[in-house]
Amino acid sequence: MLAAPQVSAFLPPRRILMGPGPSDVYPEVLAAQARPTVGHLDPLFVGMMDEVKSLLQYAFQTANPMTVALSAPGSAGMEACFVNLVEPGEKVIVCRNGVFGERMRQNVVRLGAVPVLVDSPWGQPVDPDAVESALKANPDARFLAFVHAETSTGALSDAKTLCALAKSHGCLSIVDAVTSLGGVELRVDEWGVDAVYSGSQKCLSCVPGLSPLSFSPAAVDKLQARQSPVPSWFLDQTLVMAYWGGGKRSYHHTAPVNTLYALHESLRQLAGEGLEAAWQRHRDMHLILRDGLEKLGLKFVVDAAARLPQLNAVYIPEGIDDAAARNRLLQEYNLEIGGGLGDLAGKAWRIGLMGYGARRENVALCLKALESVLK
Amino acid sequence: MLAAPQVSAFLPPRRILMGPGPSDVYPEVLAAQARPTVGHLDPLFVGMMDEVKSLLQYAFQTANPMTVALSAPGSAGMEACFVNLVEPGEKVIVCRNGVFGERMRQNVVRLGAVPVLVDSPWGQPVDPDAVESALKANPDARFLAFVHAETSTGALSDAKTLCALAKSHGCLSIVDAVTSLGGVELRVDEWGVDAVYSGSQKCLSCVPGLSPLSFSPAAVDKLQARQSPVPSWFLDQTLVMAYWGGGKRSYHHTAPVNTLYALHESLRQLAGEGLEAAWQRHRDMHLILRDGLEKLGLKFVVDAAARLPQLNAVYIPEGIDDAAARNRLLQEYNLEIGGGLGDLAGKAWRIGLMGYGARRENVALCLKALESVLK
Repeated sequence: MLAAPQVSAFLPPRRILMGPGPSDVYPEVLAAQARPTVGHLDPLFVGMMDEVKSLLQYAFQTANPMTVALSAPGSAGMEACFVNLVEPGEKVIVCRNGVFGERMRQNVVRLGAVPVLVDSPWGQPVDPDAVESALKANPDARFLAFVHAETSTGALSDAKTLCALAKSHGCLSIVDAVTSLGGVELRVDEWGVDAVYSGSQKCLSCVPGLSPLSFSPAAVDKLQARQSPVPSWFLDQTLVMAYWGGGKRSYHHTAPVNTLYALHESLRQLAGEGLEAAWQRHRDMHLILRDGLEKLGLKFVVDAAARLPQLNAVYIPEGIDDAAARNRLLQEYNLEIGGGLGDLAGKAWRIGLMGYGARRENVALCLKALESVLK
Repeated sequence: MLAAPQVSAFLPPRRILMGPGPSDVYPEVLAAQARPTVGHLDPLFVGMMDEVKSLLQYAFQTANPMTVALSAPGSAGMEACFVNLVEPGEKVIVCRNGVFGERMRQNVVRLGAVPVLVDSPWGQPVDPDAVESALKANPDARFLAFVHAETSTGALSDAKTLCALAKSHGCLSIVDAVTSLGGVELRVDEWGVDAVYSGSQKCLSCVPGLSPLSFSPAAVDKLQARQSPVPSWFLDQTLVMAYWGGGKRSYHHTAPVNTLYALHESLRQLAGEGLEAAWQRHRDMHLILRDGLEKLGLKFVVDAAARLPQLNAVYIPEGIDDAAARNRLLQEYNLEIGGGLGDLAGKAWRIGLMGYGARRENVALCLKALESVLK
């Protein structure tokens, strides 16, 4: 027998999470998650899932019946959109202005589908004119895929305009709302978004591990008209919906019961505050943070017009050691901010104001702690 | 704006979970899960992940460096094995003696690979002689896939013999240990298991949502020698290992931080008890339960020699209404037992004695409550 390792209980400190996610979790969510586990087919649990669905429909502003929380993180949500909707050989216009647009491209390629790239410089939003040109040049394209709020740069793209362009060219839209949901305006039905996914650990301030997902009726039609089976059994939404849908609940996989308690509670907190109030709070906190960062001499990566309130990317000043500075914030202040990702690695910091994390006390702490490490 | 739904906090009762999983969760695990969320790249969290890995290696009895907890349930663990190791056109011998062997077949087919089925009747273990014949008849087969502990029937197959057969015919073995890990003997290295996956919510008595997974060096070689990219980005173990592996932790996806706290604690409980002591406890509790069930006149689906201690499938006596009886157990005793699945739906109950759930008080409650509803 291999011997049992001697391991102590893990007792994490209380960090203040102001990176790109996970964000500060509502205390009520942590408490909800610790409630007793019930069976995934227990009638009480099934009733709670119905509530999660209606709370997700509210957060997405959609009446889509196919609205669920996938039992896996946001990157599985991205994959679920592509793997269910896109068939081998189909053309997908992929907008790439950061890490997550590139990940979309990789998903398309792995499926044997054909990506058409619309590139924008890192830190800029997707360019609707370039998208329109690509749509015109590729009349056989079936999808337009883009990231609403690019977590790697802090740029907000104009999802409303982009989805309208997709529709007018006969394309379905696939939208990454991982960092946008709950933090900035997102209106799935009004804007005509066809497939959208998010993550539990950003502006919903839930623990990480789940991916809210919603398909429009047009997306469901596309799924049902597939010529080939969905290549992934786990992510096949026709099977998932047999469990999440109304009526008889068919076993598909064991739902992550306690994490769904957590999501239920975080969505309840959002509904209690109100979506528009939450969007406003993110803007308000961002403005205070922005003023403070500018006073410290920090420059934003993204122009004001496209700046995400919930993700503030700023260049690291010359002469400051990235890792050492972030380590001091963590060790001395229990404060986590994010490093740069991809092209911005080592060059920028990403300061999150997400969900429950977007509070005055966090902004104040962050500014004071940064002032100290920038001295 | 769509209006916010009015939803109350979800306050589940304390159920006693004696179905096929989720099982009764250790109270220490629920407490661990509620600890403050830290970042998935926080040095303290990364240290905890190293401990999870060594605890998983202990539970699996393996030194495999590629041992991780996937950020999704056991069915994603199954898919991860097939999607990483099996390429289109390759032949896989799939043993089918219940629901989960059939699910393996579906995974193989969706990948464009070729399943060769070895069927055994429901309730019986996989037949090594039939497997050997299939291996001889298919010298071009690359894999042997089977379920160690079939959750749909309660049958235990002889994994040691089957893996030895696979090896002697040049096949890699893919083993479903969802219900076996922690409940019955499983020795990954000694038995030569090449790819094995499990679930957090069975005999580990953690909350549902994670899938422990381990690949042997031979399986890693097969993965690295692939001609085609892994079709799934989310499940691509070459990417996952860049995060779970030693050295620099590369961001792949946001780990389910709090659920990993829970798994860490549940594995710590198992290591504290000792694996062999846990196996013995499952056997001991099973014998007491078996005697009581037989006194109530209930007949087992599986012969004694292949019976899983942690999953007791018994036929529903004639004249007893399945749904009504289970509903009474739930409403009057807060006791959940499982219904039948697949061929056994409506015909059998599945009584779980998994992990923390395998205790004298649970056995006593279950027997007394069953006595009452069978009257």
